[in-house]
Amino acid sequence: MSFGLLKGKTGIIFGALDENSIAWHVAERAHEEGARIVLTNAPVALRMGAIQTLAEKLQTEVIGADATSEEDLENLLTRSMEIFGGKIDFMLHSIGMSLNVRKKREYTDIKYDWMSKTFDISAISFHKLMQTAYKLDAMNDWGSILALSYIAAQRTFPDYSEMAESKALLESFARSFGYHWAKKKNVRVNTISQSPTLTTAGSGVKGFDEFFAYADKMSPLGNASAESCADYCISLFSDLTRMVTMQNLFHDGGFSNMGMAPEVLE
Amino acid sequence: MSFGLLKGKTGIIFGALDENSIAWHVAERAHEEGARIVLTNAPVALRMGAIQTLAEKLQTEVIGADATSEEDLENLLTRSMEIFGGKIDFMLHSIGMSLNVRKKREYTDIKYDWMSKTFDISAISFHKLMQTAYKLDAMNDWGSILALSYIAAQRTFPDYSEMAESKALLESFARSFGYHWAKKKNVRVNTISQSPTLTTAGSGVKGFDEFFAYADKMSPLGNASAESCADYCISLFSDLTRMVTMQNLFHDGGFSNMGMAPEVLE
Amino acid sequence: MSFGLLKGKTGIIFGALDENSIAWHVAERAHEEGARIVLTNAPVALRMGAIQTLAEKLQTEVIGADATSEEDLENLLTRSMEIFGGKIDFMLHSIGMSLNVRKKREYTDIKYDWMSKTFDISAISFHKLMQTAYKLDAMNDWGSILALSYIAAQRTFPDYSEMAESKALLESFARSFGYHWAKKKNVRVNTISQSPTLTTAGSGVKGFDEFFAYADKMSPLGNASAESCADYCISLFSDLTRMVTMQNLFHDGGFSNMGMAPEVLE
Amino acid sequence: MSFGLLKGKTGIIFGALDENSIAWHVAERAHEEGARIVLTNAPVALRMGAIQTLAEKLQTEVIGADATSEEDLENLLTRSMEIFGGKIDFMLHSIGMSLNVRKKREYTDIKYDWMSKTFDISAISFHKLMQTAYKLDAMNDWGSILALSYIAAQRTFPDYSEMAESKALLESFARSFGYHWAKKKNVRVNTISQSPTLTTAGSGVKGFDEFFAYADKMSPLGNASAESCADYCISLFSDLTRMVTMQNLFHDGGFSNMGMAPEVLE
Repeated sequence: MSFGLLKGKTGIIFGALDENSIAWHVAERAHEEGARIVLTNAPVALRMGAIQTLAEKLQTEVIGADATSEEDLENLLTRSMEIFGGKIDFMLHSIGMSLNVRKKREYTDIKYDWMSKTFDISAISFHKLMQTAYKLDAMNDWGSILALSYIAAQRTFPDYSEMAESKALLESFARSFGYHWAKKKNVRVNTISQSPTLTTAGSGVKGFDEFFAYADKMSPLGNASAESCADYCISLFSDLTRMVTMQNLFHDGGFSNMGMAPEVLE
Repeated sequence: MSFGLLKGKTGIIFGALDENSIAWHVAERAHEEGARIVLTNAPVALRMGAIQTLAEKLQTEVIGADATSEEDLENLLTRSMEIFGGKIDFMLHSIGMSLNVRKKREYTDIKYDWMSKTFDISAISFHKLMQTAYKLDAMNDWGSILALSYIAAQRTFPDYSEMAESKALLESFARSFGYHWAKKKNVRVNTISQSPTLTTAGSGVKGFDEFFAYADKMSPLGNASAESCADYCISLFSDLTRMVTMQNLFHDGGFSNMGMAPEVLE
Repeated sequence: MSFGLLKGKTGIIFGALDENSIAWHVAERAHEEGARIVLTNAPVALRMGAIQTLAEKLQTEVIGADATSEEDLENLLTRSMEIFGGKIDFMLHSIGMSLNVRKKREYTDIKYDWMSKTFDISAISFHKLMQTAYKLDAMNDWGSILALSYIAAQRTFPDYSEMAESKALLESFARSFGYHWAKKKNVRVNTISQSPTLTTAGSGVKGFDEFFAYADKMSPLGNASAESCADYCISLFSDLTRMVTMQNLFHDGGFSNMGMAPEVLE
Repeated sequence: MSFGLLKGKTGIIFGALDENSIAWHVAERAHEEGARIVLTNAPVALRMGAIQTLAEKLQTEVIGADATSEEDLENLLTRSMEIFGGKIDFMLHSIGMSLNVRKKREYTDIKYDWMSKTFDISAISFHKLMQTAYKLDAMNDWGSILALSYIAAQRTFPDYSEMAESKALLESFARSFGYHWAKKKNVRVNTISQSPTLTTAGSGVKGFDEFFAYADKMSPLGNASAESCADYCISLFSDLTRMVTMQNLFHDGGFSNMGMAPEVLE
């Protein structure tokens, strides 16, 4: 499937860790649709090496950046504009990590230093990215900024722990900064609330497999895959969706609007 | 702009009254994107004649149908499948009319016969269309059914009167039938909640111009036009959005998530 | 439990069919809290007789009214004001019935005449009640109008069928008419979205028992009972909640904001 | 107005700075309704002295606590239980402060250290309070925990800046911890989303007066006052609302569900 939807466009994609990553698929699809892209990830993730394989395949560069560092983000954006010979049309924020979950602290026994780091990595990094780009005037008119979210921002999934708050923060940043980006450059800012996905990150969450199966049954179309999420991202980077902004868009096979599926009761 | 997004696809489009209609633009864009379409509207609307001009331009046919008549809908779907030589990939429901508004009855002095007719025309017709297609097994796998809605389904705009309830009904039908269509054929069903639009229908509402200007100020990107709405419909008919279902999608320049715009206060 | 919260207030309560009815408990609690009330129900429901027992217990009257008849509603309101010697402070609409469900028609094979009757009984009756009271100027300042709803208005429960749309309509009427009542008399209008409840009406829905158990597990506090719903109604009739209006209020032990309960997976 | 709704109950109230504070009114009303309460605020706020006047009036004690300090919260809860001779029935979190707003940094030029402090004071303090109470097992069965929020958690009010995110966080904590409190002790956790209020804190926000007038016009019942908010809090501490949990409850005269008020256009 290739339509030339992003022909002449340029974009930065965060979070392509390995072939299971949604961001990996987005990068591939964006390339197919004619965009030039820059890949980025945290230095620690880069050392795993897979992203270089992707960069070669897509004939592009990887620029390491700690998304919690304003300095790194400034460097990323500046160098990307040099590479593109111009401003940026789209950006994907696909970053999330919970220290308390990783270290198996219960939600009722949170370590607050870790919570702050979780928020910084998973959500505030999105504000930092947008603010740095805003100050550098790095986006083209009618550009598109996207972040990946999850329905735990609206409803409680106890095992998801402080990531619920991270996603609530993330979506709020999209709404708040969406106003300013619209006013400055007609740039739109949205989040996609994606089905649970069999990524390396997703798999880390306790009881993920059972939950994945539950969500799959609860969703009339089944869980949305990483591949289909990449397709959806393409539509949101394309000029077909210029007037959609400050929204959280569910890409979940219908999960979010199901109250109870007979399939689950059986 | 043309990407071949709907190449090989077939669709039925309701509600193309004249050049100001959103449906008119959707028909044109769907044609550009490679779809074969059938146009339809109520007999009384057909008599105005403009739709024939569109049909000629798009080298397609017009099949009259009263959307409140199950018989007419059955005929429409059956004949469309004959014309296409196969099943249908997408449908757009763009129908709405309020008798109480048209006849200037206040919301606190509703005539209930008229309200029933309003619901029948503006909302129940959507269920009838989906039910008739369901019984005829008229949709292709992974098809897309769309209806146009308005944010009055969620919030009160006093002059919009009983159309608020019509849209609440419409969106509920999308969620409810979306489940059944997903299970039967992986067909998705969504509504687009569009900005106030300068269509012939929109203009009929009391105080529309002032309200249009207000919404335009309140929306960080301004009101979405009929043309941009057509683009958005194309993305939702295309295979890029296969896992989005049972959603109400705001296409409104950000209006729905603004609490207060400084531009309005000034 | 009795606090005198409704001392000096007058109210009309629809839908007290038998001891399992939420409305039955609301009537008892309102009486305990010092209100004078009038009971009403459809003529067919009155013939079952239980409501007379309640009326005697509460030393009040029953006035039969078909809630779909504007004439009956006018009579009900006029006679109630005569009985009270003044206007009305609160009203509870607790009416719902689906012909297609009762007659076991699938949601994909709806009979539309029945759907219209379902809407008329379950939702439009609420508008008729409010409009009739509005025209008669029958409410006291700072009064409270309530209707009972269900979360199917927001999310899909396939077996709930066209009652989803009935509740979506009902909640929309609350928002729309809430504006007009606020402006006229500072009267508030809200809906309570109640847990599935073991009433005579609830029990009629297919697979209700399994669903009740599922909802009970999904709700961190368990399903809310009819008795606790009555308590909540009292708080919404009292002067403690004067500024809450046009809201749909979940009274459901937390069900509505749960994404997944570990208790369900087990 | 006094009904004995909180007779025999005990509660802790944060944030009673002066007579304009919502918390001040809640303390007075809780006392009237028969509760024994402990007042608390940050040491810096205590030095202003007004809270001592309130404590004398209500014949209660003030325990200073920095709500961002787990140690202070533990001391507060422990000493409160000593004073009460038992556990706690209700708590009100009414704390919010934005460093970036106070220091006039634009939302597009946020200082992130300040943002972290804002979140810690305005939102994470709520988690800390709940977690400390959870570990100490400090709440009685069927207790009630409340925090005050604002609709900027859902929609963008540009001047509200990072407080939007603080409130999104706060509401998410209520949902997440609400699950655990329900399971542990049937305790409910909710937030009230209150109208803009003429408190000392509210007045600090840029353009507050114009905005207050706008919200007042947009709300069919007008803006809800601090006094009426106190009444609403009482209903949510009382046993009438035991099954309401994990909700964000709008107390705003209808603002949240208005799309456009004719009064604003005029």
